[in-house]
Amino acid sequence: MKVLILGGDGYLGWPTTMSFARAGHTVTALDSSIKRQWQAEFGVRPLWPVPSLLERVATWNKLFDTQQAHKPIRHFHCDIATSYMGLCAILEATTPDAIIHYAEQPSAPYSMATADTCVRTQANNILGTLNLIHAVRLVAPDAHIIKLGTMGEYGTPNIDIEEGWLDVEHKGRKDRVLYPKRPNSWYHLSKVHDSHNLEFACRNYRLRVTDLNQGIVYGVDTPETLLDRDLRTAFHYDDIFGTVINRFIVQAITGKPLTVYGDGTQTRGFINILDTIQCITLAAENSADLGEFRVMNQMTESFAIRDLANAVGRTLSAPTQMIPNPRREQSNHYYKVHHTKLTDLGLVPNLLTNKVITQIAETCREYKDSVNENALNPRVIW
Amino acid sequence: MKVLILGGDGYLGWPTTMSFARAGHTVTALDSSIKRQWQAEFGVRPLWPVPSLLERVATWNKLFDTQQAHKPIRHFHCDIATSYMGLCAILEATTPDAIIHYAEQPSAPYSMATADTCVRTQANNILGTLNLIHAVRLVAPDAHIIKLGTMGEYGTPNIDIEEGWLDVEHKGRKDRVLYPKRPNSWYHLSKVHDSHNLEFACRNYRLRVTDLNQGIVYGVDTPETLLDRDLRTAFHYDDIFGTVINRFIVQAITGKPLTVYGDGTQTRGFINILDTIQCITLAAENSADLGEFRVMNQMTESFAIRDLANAVGRTLSAPTQMIPNPRREQSNHYYKVHHTKLTDLGLVPNLLTNKVITQIAETCREYKDSVNENALNPRVIW
Repeated sequence: MKVLILGGDGYLGWPTTMSFARAGHTVTALDSSIKRQWQAEFGVRPLWPVPSLLERVATWNKLFDTQQAHKPIRHFHCDIATSYMGLCAILEATTPDAIIHYAEQPSAPYSMATADTCVRTQANNILGTLNLIHAVRLVAPDAHIIKLGTMGEYGTPNIDIEEGWLDVEHKGRKDRVLYPKRPNSWYHLSKVHDSHNLEFACRNYRLRVTDLNQGIVYGVDTPETLLDRDLRTAFHYDDIFGTVINRFIVQAITGKPLTVYGDGTQTRGFINILDTIQCITLAAENSADLGEFRVMNQMTESFAIRDLANAVGRTLSAPTQMIPNPRREQSNHYYKVHHTKLTDLGLVPNLLTNKVITQIAETCREYKDSVNENALNPRVIW
Repeated sequence: MKVLILGGDGYLGWPTTMSFARAGHTVTALDSSIKRQWQAEFGVRPLWPVPSLLERVATWNKLFDTQQAHKPIRHFHCDIATSYMGLCAILEATTPDAIIHYAEQPSAPYSMATADTCVRTQANNILGTLNLIHAVRLVAPDAHIIKLGTMGEYGTPNIDIEEGWLDVEHKGRKDRVLYPKRPNSWYHLSKVHDSHNLEFACRNYRLRVTDLNQGIVYGVDTPETLLDRDLRTAFHYDDIFGTVINRFIVQAITGKPLTVYGDGTQTRGFINILDTIQCITLAAENSADLGEFRVMNQMTESFAIRDLANAVGRTLSAPTQMIPNPRREQSNHYYKVHHTKLTDLGLVPNLLTNKVITQIAETCREYKDSVNENALNPRVIW
């Protein structure tokens, strides 16, 4: 399979790139490195240094060249939000069967910081996805777009969260509608807009799209990141780009209490980075049909944040501490998510066990002295 | 009341500006004139020459200066999609009670023409509305935003169209959700995205917003446009910015058949330009509460396009002709719209009568020789 990965420099994009390459696919990674600029705006860094995409691709290709077993990874510098023609040229050059689209600003706090970060988030995400739609339509109309959405798009409705679509009955009549979403940040809204745009692209241009509403990802290593220290992926624990389990673990290893926002009854879906790659692979191997807008909920389990803190705290012998919630979100809400489609395709979940927590902590402990403690406290309030 | 009108140079923006000014309000109109650039891209022009906003404001202020009865209209050149700081400065200078937001790319065919017009439509509409949200939050948090949406946002669902919100029951549980929308163009989608963004702004920043989902507007004159030939508003009959009743009337007066797209069973909501201004006035006089996202369906009657063509054709003695539908839209669909909120506020509809059709035709007939017949045929196919 020929695979094009948009956002190949990212936390998930780079391990995905390596995983597909190692499985023998022809892989091209694309990135603009703009996330490194966004990080710099807030002075946040991954826990360990992460070589550039160019450097990591070179490391990979050198490693596998000596083994003669794999095709080299190709990579391009391209900002899909502003360079429609560049994206068209790359599609022409790579003729992908599957396009995995991670090339979005991925942080709710970043999007909520200022008017400017809000506008840049929606411009980047919406316009990049629109350029992708039009480039695929023009150059690679059979390619399968696999788009990363987020469980946060749904918000916390008082009814079950279905996989993308909802059957409604209203005043005696029936319809099947896009699941009504009500998220809590400009970032999450940008992904709702993407989903609406992609659904229209399927309906009107007969593109084939899989929209994956992913839970909050945690984890450090995949089989490929372990091959060489210079192949590691970025690990964010900070208040802007960090995810909650990663942050809890870094708080624990640096002797800080695990800070729970509000009363911690807010409940979210989670997924191990290994399962992210498993899901993307399953989605790519089982394409959506032409004209189909397929939505799957990509998460394996859900936790109230309070319970999660207690679990990590117990495992790593760290206390938890409640702090005022910097975000406006519901507590004590209903949360029942259906997520069977990926299991039906063959997903075997790697759940959050004590062993998983301990392993991540071990990797992080090596970089304990590099932790920026200021970045553990929320700076963006909404 | 101090009123700021965004998009004051437009078909609806200019008559609204004059109407509020004449009623004694303090009115400021803002525009970037970018719609005149969009028109030039497709070589389309209003049926009669329309002086610039600057010129029309000067004409108005001169007319009323001699009568000493009214406050002068102020105006600013500003592109709200790109000039957040400019917009903030204008809000500082004008301290509006109500902001009427027409400043959007208003054409579905324009948005569907190319990748570039799609991206520019969504960038203009979404980013402009985001800049407005943030500028209001910062400078004028009590101001009432009155945003023009469109009935086309809903698409043609198989259930009743409610006013913005839907009560759902699912698996024995209940919730009230944003009405699930499924429109048929990039333009209509941009307005769906605006609505989601505005709802979040109400919820998170406690802004007050009225979102008006307007039907297709027709008509030429308002009491103020009749005061002076140089105060007329733009009348579009073309395939890009024209609306269907206006186009039918121009086809009739030039001896062309009224062209119906497809079988003409597609049904839409309509409103007279006089009622647009009535509705906007009612919305401004009856503000949404702080934190409220109020949605009203701004239309007075609905017609199948085929019946509409027959009605105009009978009145003006012109034949109708079915042509292949250049758009992808449902025929023979369910269409029941609830639109009682504006009636409850006092709207007295001006319906589409033979007299109304005849009056519009009379005004247009004067400019019969200026009609660009090429612009009567659809050039954008989707």
